[in-house]
Amino acid sequence: MTRFVLVAGTTKTARIDGISAAGADPDLVAHTPSADAELLEYGQLVRAPSLPVSPTGCPTPAAITRAVRERVGFETLVVDAGLAEPTGAPTVGVGAKPGRDVREPDPVPTAPGAWVAAHELGGALPDDELVIGETIPGGTTTALGVFRALGVGGGGSKADYPAGVPVSSSLPENPLDLKREVIEDAFVASDLAPGDAAYRPERAVRFLGDPVLATIAGLTAGALESGTEVILGGGTQMLAAAALVRHAGVAAPLSVATTAYVADADVDAAAAALDCDLVVTDPGFEGRDDPLARYAAGEAKEGAGMGGALLLAERAGALGGVADGTLEVVERVDGSYEP
Amino acid sequence: MTRFVLVAGTTKTARIDGISAAGADPDLVAHTPSADAELLEYGQLVRAPSLPVSPTGCPTPAAITRAVRERVGFETLVVDAGLAEPTGAPTVGVGAKPGRDVREPDPVPTAPGAWVAAHELGGALPDDELVIGETIPGGTTTALGVFRALGVGGGGSKADYPAGVPVSSSLPENPLDLKREVIEDAFVASDLAPGDAAYRPERAVRFLGDPVLATIAGLTAGALESGTEVILGGGTQMLAAAALVRHAGVAAPLSVATTAYVADADVDAAAAALDCDLVVTDPGFEGRDDPLARYAAGEAKEGAGMGGALLLAERAGALGGVADGTLEVVERVDGSYEP
Repeated sequence: MTRFVLVAGTTKTARIDGISAAGADPDLVAHTPSADAELLEYGQLVRAPSLPVSPTGCPTPAAITRAVRERVGFETLVVDAGLAEPTGAPTVGVGAKPGRDVREPDPVPTAPGAWVAAHELGGALPDDELVIGETIPGGTTTALGVFRALGVGGGGSKADYPAGVPVSSSLPENPLDLKREVIEDAFVASDLAPGDAAYRPERAVRFLGDPVLATIAGLTAGALESGTEVILGGGTQMLAAAALVRHAGVAAPLSVATTAYVADADVDAAAAALDCDLVVTDPGFEGRDDPLARYAAGEAKEGAGMGGALLLAERAGALGGVADGTLEVVERVDGSYEP
Repeated sequence: MTRFVLVAGTTKTARIDGISAAGADPDLVAHTPSADAELLEYGQLVRAPSLPVSPTGCPTPAAITRAVRERVGFETLVVDAGLAEPTGAPTVGVGAKPGRDVREPDPVPTAPGAWVAAHELGGALPDDELVIGETIPGGTTTALGVFRALGVGGGGSKADYPAGVPVSSSLPENPLDLKREVIEDAFVASDLAPGDAAYRPERAVRFLGDPVLATIAGLTAGALESGTEVILGGGTQMLAAAALVRHAGVAAPLSVATTAYVADADVDAAAAALDCDLVVTDPGFEGRDDPLARYAAGEAKEGAGMGGALLLAERAGALGGVADGTLEVVERVDGSYEP
């Protein structure tokens, strides 16, 4: 049996101006993971205030994941990896608290404990296969921090952006200079240099990462070691999680499932370097005359395990219905929504 | 759509010697709700130490509820109404903490807050129908306290056991004298008399009850007021929850679904007095040569929403497979189990 696991959390890093598009305005960003969890579980909001949309109105990828669930049907589990706002979705805890700003000296002190608890959970779940997604605003920035800390993609001593590391964005114009600057500041604050945390993944995720990456890495390592197959559903952040798992010494086969909107040569190369099988699905949103077309134009792109959910849809021969199903979810949740 | 809601919690009342059979030994009793939640969600244990059984080896009714879920399929939600031990099941919180011993002056201070939060949750869930079950050791004792505090069943000034109030037990020999004594002590400690909390249900559940009853009453009232149908799956405790709902002024139609092992003239009369539709299901465990026969012999009887789950099985024409399905669950969870 397959279970879809959504790992949901927050950091203060997401509050840095210009980092994240995961909310219509900055005050709503911290609610996005809580709302995404409710969408996955109920196809409705329960405690969260509003449907997460980007500043331009592009709906959260959690609506896509939910649409797949309504068509295909799969078991779910939401892991609280540092939620900051109430959710009506049931969650299991791993001791994670919201991350601080990565530019503080010890931004994710709960990361090592969450890793261990998630490792135990991943090993104890009774499923044959886990599809793991994430929802954490600002997550591509901390993913960049993790790549750099591990020395993945040429890292090591280079102060500039490492070659071969894919860092996507929920914004159509990726604020890469800002991300680099934030991560450089984070290294200074933590008194670490790029590559210093190679093969010490708990250090990388504690000082340069976020609680969601720690939890995904622990879950994945625990599941793989107990013989459960794992598909990481997502782009940049899932490659960072895979890097953490590999640097923890776990060599078992591991897949990353993403969408055509994220996949490129860098993603390909990173997956190959991490010995991950890369599966790319195209939900066919290009050329539509509704907000889903924005995904194809480079907005939102991934998140809430969308790539993993689309793979499950493709397996079930239901990929064709995903776009209409997503619009149904969006309209049900937000009746006032004008495509 | 129907959702099965398991409300899970604990009190120190359950530690009173001889009160509860919800555990092989006293140290395991507090783990029972956490384990029941895992059984419902996974059909396996994840963080809980062992399959809950009575001292004579009768398996938890959660195994029956899970067996129905595996045959019929329904959405679930576990509400944390004061769990004291870790669970790997995802839960939603309502601010409830484990109850203290009901003989203390203020045993459930979180009851009023949990009621309010559960009321909001019950009103916000998107489902057409909720089937609500409970798992809380010692719960029939606090249910007796609630009946008495509300003055249900002749209550009022009578110091003796009120007529017309059904109080079942997970033990084959119901320790009614002990329960009465505990509740009399509880009235003294709270400086209340029987009937004092009539039409003040929050007082009844705070001073004589438990956090699970507060949560179920809030959920039920919130759901009914928003037009969601509610079936309370259980016996004594669900009648106490119904009494709380009626004393909160909620007059909407309400059903109680229980099993033939609990139903009797007292249950009938109490349901009628509370204007509840009573539905009785017989899973046919009588005369079996396995531990399920103990249910028919008066052990365990109810719990974990078993009566509600069996009603869902009956609706789906799957009642016949429940016994074998339950044994499958028990054997899967506890390979060493000898029927």
